[in-house]
Amino acid sequence: MTSNAPIIDLNADLGEGFGLWRMGDDDAMLDIVTSANVACGFHAGDPDIMATTFARAKEKGVAVGAHVAFPDLAGFGRRALPMSAQEIERTVAYQLGAAQALAVLVGHRIGYVKAHGALANIAERDADVAGAIARATRAVDPSLTLLAIALSEQGRAGERAGLKVAHEVFADRAYMDDGTLQPRGQAGAVIEDVERAAARMRDMLANKGLRTASGKLLPTSIDSICVHGDAPLAVALARRLREGLEQEGWRLRAFAGE
Amino acid sequence: MTSNAPIIDLNADLGEGFGLWRMGDDDAMLDIVTSANVACGFHAGDPDIMATTFARAKEKGVAVGAHVAFPDLAGFGRRALPMSAQEIERTVAYQLGAAQALAVLVGHRIGYVKAHGALANIAERDADVAGAIARATRAVDPSLTLLAIALSEQGRAGERAGLKVAHEVFADRAYMDDGTLQPRGQAGAVIEDVERAAARMRDMLANKGLRTASGKLLPTSIDSICVHGDAPLAVALARRLREGLEQEGWRLRAFAGE
Amino acid sequence: MTSNAPIIDLNADLGEGFGLWRMGDDDAMLDIVTSANVACGFHAGDPDIMATTFARAKEKGVAVGAHVAFPDLAGFGRRALPMSAQEIERTVAYQLGAAQALAVLVGHRIGYVKAHGALANIAERDADVAGAIARATRAVDPSLTLLAIALSEQGRAGERAGLKVAHEVFADRAYMDDGTLQPRGQAGAVIEDVERAAARMRDMLANKGLRTASGKLLPTSIDSICVHGDAPLAVALARRLREGLEQEGWRLRAFAGE
Amino acid sequence: MTSNAPIIDLNADLGEGFGLWRMGDDDAMLDIVTSANVACGFHAGDPDIMATTFARAKEKGVAVGAHVAFPDLAGFGRRALPMSAQEIERTVAYQLGAAQALAVLVGHRIGYVKAHGALANIAERDADVAGAIARATRAVDPSLTLLAIALSEQGRAGERAGLKVAHEVFADRAYMDDGTLQPRGQAGAVIEDVERAAARMRDMLANKGLRTASGKLLPTSIDSICVHGDAPLAVALARRLREGLEQEGWRLRAFAGE
Repeated sequence: MTSNAPIIDLNADLGEGFGLWRMGDDDAMLDIVTSANVACGFHAGDPDIMATTFARAKEKGVAVGAHVAFPDLAGFGRRALPMSAQEIERTVAYQLGAAQALAVLVGHRIGYVKAHGALANIAERDADVAGAIARATRAVDPSLTLLAIALSEQGRAGERAGLKVAHEVFADRAYMDDGTLQPRGQAGAVIEDVERAAARMRDMLANKGLRTASGKLLPTSIDSICVHGDAPLAVALARRLREGLEQEGWRLRAFAGE
Repeated sequence: MTSNAPIIDLNADLGEGFGLWRMGDDDAMLDIVTSANVACGFHAGDPDIMATTFARAKEKGVAVGAHVAFPDLAGFGRRALPMSAQEIERTVAYQLGAAQALAVLVGHRIGYVKAHGALANIAERDADVAGAIARATRAVDPSLTLLAIALSEQGRAGERAGLKVAHEVFADRAYMDDGTLQPRGQAGAVIEDVERAAARMRDMLANKGLRTASGKLLPTSIDSICVHGDAPLAVALARRLREGLEQEGWRLRAFAGE
Repeated sequence: MTSNAPIIDLNADLGEGFGLWRMGDDDAMLDIVTSANVACGFHAGDPDIMATTFARAKEKGVAVGAHVAFPDLAGFGRRALPMSAQEIERTVAYQLGAAQALAVLVGHRIGYVKAHGALANIAERDADVAGAIARATRAVDPSLTLLAIALSEQGRAGERAGLKVAHEVFADRAYMDDGTLQPRGQAGAVIEDVERAAARMRDMLANKGLRTASGKLLPTSIDSICVHGDAPLAVALARRLREGLEQEGWRLRAFAGE
Repeated sequence: MTSNAPIIDLNADLGEGFGLWRMGDDDAMLDIVTSANVACGFHAGDPDIMATTFARAKEKGVAVGAHVAFPDLAGFGRRALPMSAQEIERTVAYQLGAAQALAVLVGHRIGYVKAHGALANIAERDADVAGAIARATRAVDPSLTLLAIALSEQGRAGERAGLKVAHEVFADRAYMDDGTLQPRGQAGAVIEDVERAAARMRDMLANKGLRTASGKLLPTSIDSICVHGDAPLAVALARRLREGLEQEGWRLRAFAGE
C-alpha cells in the first residue's frame, strides 16, 4: 500500500445499547471500521454507553460521529414521528451537543453527523428535514462533516449549508433506479451474501457510482461504506469487505479524521 | 446608580416545562432576574422548550446556565438516584453539551453550570459528587463558571478543578448554623414573607455572609441570589427583592456575562 | 326534575398531569362533570395521579373511564405514531388494565374506555384502529362501555365487538358535513363563546343529531357531551353548559354508572 | 413419577427486553421452567413483549406472574428509588393490572406477583415496602399468590394481607446465616458451578430449609426455585437442575396453576 492509494472509509452504527441492554458486537466492529456512528440517547445509547464507546473508539483510532435520531427508544428511531422542521433542528442540535461533550470528556472529538433510521429515510428525500439537520449541524459546529446517503437530499442540504459532505453507500442494501434504497421487506432488499456484498462495493468504488438492482450506474462520489452492526452476519461482512478492499489496494481511513 | 455600585446577580430556575406542561411564569421572571438556570431535559425541559427559553433570555439580556440534574422527569430531579460519581460526571457532561448546542443554535451561549434538586443537595456536602460535576464542566468548557451554594462542597470542588466559582444564597430558605439549608418540611424552612425575605438578603449582602436562622453570620462571598420561579409568590418576591436592592444602590448584573 | 327527565352525561379529560406537572383544574371539573376520562400514564398521568383522580371522582360520585392513548408523554398523545393494529390493541389493553387496578385500589371502578388525542382522531375514521381498541376493551372486560365519537368508526367497531357504546358530541368543536370534527387550526374549528357552545349543545340534544357548521343535522343518538378541561374557559363553559341543561329539564347522569 | 411425588416449581425472569432489545433466551427457558416472572414495562418489557411472552408461556403450559419493579428502565429496576409506601403500592397495582389485561388478551392469566430487583431487595427486609406490595396485590385480586423470598418480610406481609404465599430459594445465590442473600460482588455470592448449584438445591428441598454458606440449615417451606435467565450459564443451570430434580422423583409443577 502506498501513500497515493485510493482512500475509503467504513462506517457502522455503534453504542446502540441502553441501560443494561446491548446490541451488536461493538468491540469486534471497532477493529474493522474507521468511523463509528454513535447513538446519542434518543433512539439508543445513554451517557455511560456513549462515553464508553467514544473512549474505545479513541483507543482504536476510530473516528466518531453523532448518530442523531427521532426521540423514540421504544421504536429504536425507526418510526417516523410527526415533528416540524424546527423541532427536528432542535432535537438534532441537542443530541449533537450532548455527543460532543461526552466525546471531549473522554479525550475524543465528534467528527461528523449522520441521521439514523426514520430520520435518515425522511431526510433522504425531504429537503426541509434534510435542511433542518444541516442547519443544526452548522450552527453547533461548522467544521463538522455531514455523512449523507449518496445522491440524497441530505447531501444537497449539507452543501447548501456550507458543510463538508461525505457520501456513503450501503454494503448490504439494494438500490432502485432512482438511487433510493429498496425498502426493507421487499425481496432482495437486503443482500445477505457476504461475497456478493463485497464484490458490489468494489464495483461501485471502481466505477464511481451507485449500481442499482437493475444494473444501472448512477455516478456519485463515494467517501464511505456503511456496514450494519446489528445483523447476524454484520461482523463477518464488515471484515470480508475490509480485507477485499485492502487486497485491491484501497486504504481504509476515516473521512473526518480520527 | 453609578458604575462603581456594588454588583449582584439574581438567578431563577426557568424552562421547567416538558412537552405541553409548563411550570412557573418564565416571561415575568425573565424581566426580573439576570441569570436563568435552564433545565436540560433530564428533570424538565426538552429541546423545544430549551431553545425557546434561551432565545427569550437572549432578547432580554439574561445570562443562561445549564441546570443539570438526575435523569428523572417523573420525580422532577428531586429524588436521589443511586449513581456513581462517574455516571454523574457523564450525565452532567451530556446535559451541558446539549444545552450549549441549543443556546448556540438560537444565538445565546451557556455561561455557567448549576446543579438542580437532589443532585445539588448531595453535591452540597459530598465532595465526590461535587467533584464529578466540576470535572464534567471543566472538561466540556473550562471557561464556564460553576454556580455553587455558598459554603458548600460545590464551591470547593469548582475551585479545585480550576473553574471560576460564583456563590449563591437563597432568598426564601432558612440556613442552619453549619451553613446548610434547613430541610423543606421543617417549620420555618421556607420564608414566605416577601418583605422579610428581601430584608434578610440585604442584611447578608451588606454583611458579606450567610445569616443563619439563629442569627449567626457565616462569612462568604455572595455573587448571586437564588429566587424560586415555581412558588406561588415567586414573581412577587423576585420583583420586590430586585426593587429593594436597586433602591439600596446595588446594580443587578449577571456574574457570567449576558 | 322528575325521574323521567331526559338523561345526558358530561365528560371531561382529567388527571392529565405527570410527576409535578399539572394541567387543568380537576377539582372544579369534578364538581361539574358526570364522567372523567382519566389519563393512563402513556400521554399523561402516573400511578399516583391516577389513583388520586380515581379517589376524588369516587368521592364526588363521578364515573371514570380509561383514557387510552399512544405512548407519547412528550407529545401528549397528540402525535400519530406508526403502530400496527396489534400493537395498538396491546397498548390499549395495558393502559386499561393499569387503570382498572388503580381504580379498584382506591374503591372505584373503570366504567368505560375512551381513546385520546391522535389515537381518537385515527379511530374516528380507521376501522382497523377502531377495531383494535374495541377488541382490547372486550377482551379485558366485556361489561365496559366504549365512549365513541358520534357517527365514527369507533362506535361501529364497538358494536361489532358486542360492547355497549355511548356516543359523544363536543361542546366546543365545529362539525363538518360528513360528521367529522373540523381540524383545529382552521378558522371556527373551536367555539370559544360559552353561550353559543351551550345553545348548540341544547339544539343537538333536542334534535337528536349533530349540527354541522353549515347547519345540516346528522341524526345520531347522543349519550354524552365532551367538555375540555385544559382550555382557559373550560370550567366556565362546563358549568354554564350544565346549568343550561338542568334548566331545560335534563338530568345529568353518567352513562356508565358511578 | 407417581401422583404423590413431591412437587416443586422452577421460576425464571422472562420478557426482559424493551423495544428491539432482548435479554436472555426466553424460548429455551420456557421449555424448562414452570413459572415465568414477566417484566411489566417499568424495568423492562413493553405491551408487545409482554403479550408475546404470555402467549408463548400459555402454549408451553408455563404459569405467569407479574414481575413488578421500580419505574427505572435505565437502571433495569436494580436501583433503589426513594418512593413512599403509598407510591409503591400504586406502582405495583398499575403494573399488575397492566399485566393481567395483557395476559387475558392472549388467553392466559396472571397467577402470582413477584417483586424484582431493588424492590425485591428492599421488601426482603422492610415490612412497610413488603406490606405495600401485598396490599396492592390483595386489592387488585385476592386470589393471587405472592411469590416471596423464603424467610423474608415479603412472605410475612403476604400472610398478613391474607394472600397465598409461595416461598422461593435461589439456585445460584449464597445465603448468609440470617437467611438473607449474600450481596452480589462479594466473593462466593454467585454460584457458577452448575453441579454444585443443583446439588445444593436438592439438599435444601430434602431438608426443608435454607442451607447457608456456613452450612447452617434455616427451616422454611420451599415452593419454588428461582433460576436466572440472563446469566451466561442460565439455560444450562436450569436444565441440569430440572433433570436432577426429576431423577430424584420430584414433580415439576407451577405453584399457581398454569
